[in-house]
Amino acid sequence: MERQSVPQTTIQRLPAYLRCLLQAQEQRMPVVNSVELAEMCGTNAAQVRKDLSYLGELGTRGIGYDVKALIAHISSVLGITERRRAAVIGYGRFGGALLGYSGFAERGFEIVAVVDADPAKVGTLVQTPSGEIAVSAIDDLERVMQEAGVEIAILATPASVTQGMADRLVAAGVRAILNLAPVRLVVPEGIAVRQVCLSTDLQVLSFHLAQNAQHGPQGADEQE
Amino acid sequence: MERQSVPQTTIQRLPAYLRCLLQAQEQRMPVVNSVELAEMCGTNAAQVRKDLSYLGELGTRGIGYDVKALIAHISSVLGITERRRAAVIGYGRFGGALLGYSGFAERGFEIVAVVDADPAKVGTLVQTPSGEIAVSAIDDLERVMQEAGVEIAILATPASVTQGMADRLVAAGVRAILNLAPVRLVVPEGIAVRQVCLSTDLQVLSFHLAQNAQHGPQGADEQE
Repeated sequence: MERQSVPQTTIQRLPAYLRCLLQAQEQRMPVVNSVELAEMCGTNAAQVRKDLSYLGELGTRGIGYDVKALIAHISSVLGITERRRAAVIGYGRFGGALLGYSGFAERGFEIVAVVDADPAKVGTLVQTPSGEIAVSAIDDLERVMQEAGVEIAILATPASVTQGMADRLVAAGVRAILNLAPVRLVVPEGIAVRQVCLSTDLQVLSFHLAQNAQHGPQGADEQE
Repeated sequence: MERQSVPQTTIQRLPAYLRCLLQAQEQRMPVVNSVELAEMCGTNAAQVRKDLSYLGELGTRGIGYDVKALIAHISSVLGITERRRAAVIGYGRFGGALLGYSGFAERGFEIVAVVDADPAKVGTLVQTPSGEIAVSAIDDLERVMQEAGVEIAILATPASVTQGMADRLVAAGVRAILNLAPVRLVVPEGIAVRQVCLSTDLQVLSFHLAQNAQHGPQGADEQE
């Protein structure tokens, strides 16, 4: 199958293309060529053409890509033509900040459950971009995941309990985890995990600062 | 110079090696070999040997790496033997969550300034892992960055003002930016930027969910 052979690095660039295409749509551009799209995304045209070639026969030589059709196609490849149901596990400072983040809803994700271990928080109503939800107890994790039809769990728990939470989530049928705790999760094959680690990002920045101090500045832009 | 030729992908794995080595040190392991280190970090031994070979002649064949020496060496390559001074720009929900995150201090980063545009927040004392700081006004951005000796700015501002903030930070001498706003920054050459985009991570997870639904589960673990 076409899609199975899309390289990881291409998949990781698709969200950026989608974002730029939505921007182009807002600016009422019916068609973009690879040079324009590359410029909007901060990459080069050859890369754009190569990445999009993995998705099939798209675009017309000498004209470009139909913006609306390409948005629909990338959304379909990313599996976000329907809304994805996500849960936030751990309603601490990070979990709370996530709930207020309107970017999720705009990109096709809906927070349908919030779970916390603190009895004082359970039952509290929290505001999300798509409405109010009551915080559920961690003891009810499995039931809540199943009843709310959660596909993606966002782990914002203390590091020490994160692996245990991941195990319970996987057992409850959750197939994708975004982990914000600074812990490397071990999960069975077929479960998708993305690790967000701000300390790692800071250390990579620090590397570039150290390099610049030693060798003078170099290009060190590593967005996306 | 040796260090200038370290590939980006290796640099991005160094923080994980460092984390695993610190773990090994806690467990009082004086020496680790590449197989053990690979297992702790979830990679393979050949990768570990290759990555570490870029840093110079390290380790002893048949024995392994001296844990303490390798920690010191990687810390030095990452430029975190001294504490790095960072500022949080934007004291909203995300900015606030960042301030409470003890991981930064543990990894060698100190939040030395917090800046916000809201006059009601300016002057408020906020608790950080390394003590209390008063929120500064955005009008004083340049002065605050210089007086506090900020090397890394963490941008947690609304998307619409983020590029303008980045421009001012660069003009004020900040050489590294961690951007949490869903906006691609344009910066001069030599300025290091890391982009954190949780929506992108969710979309990559969604891709795997869509793949699994179509083709059955595959390995989709992409940590670090």
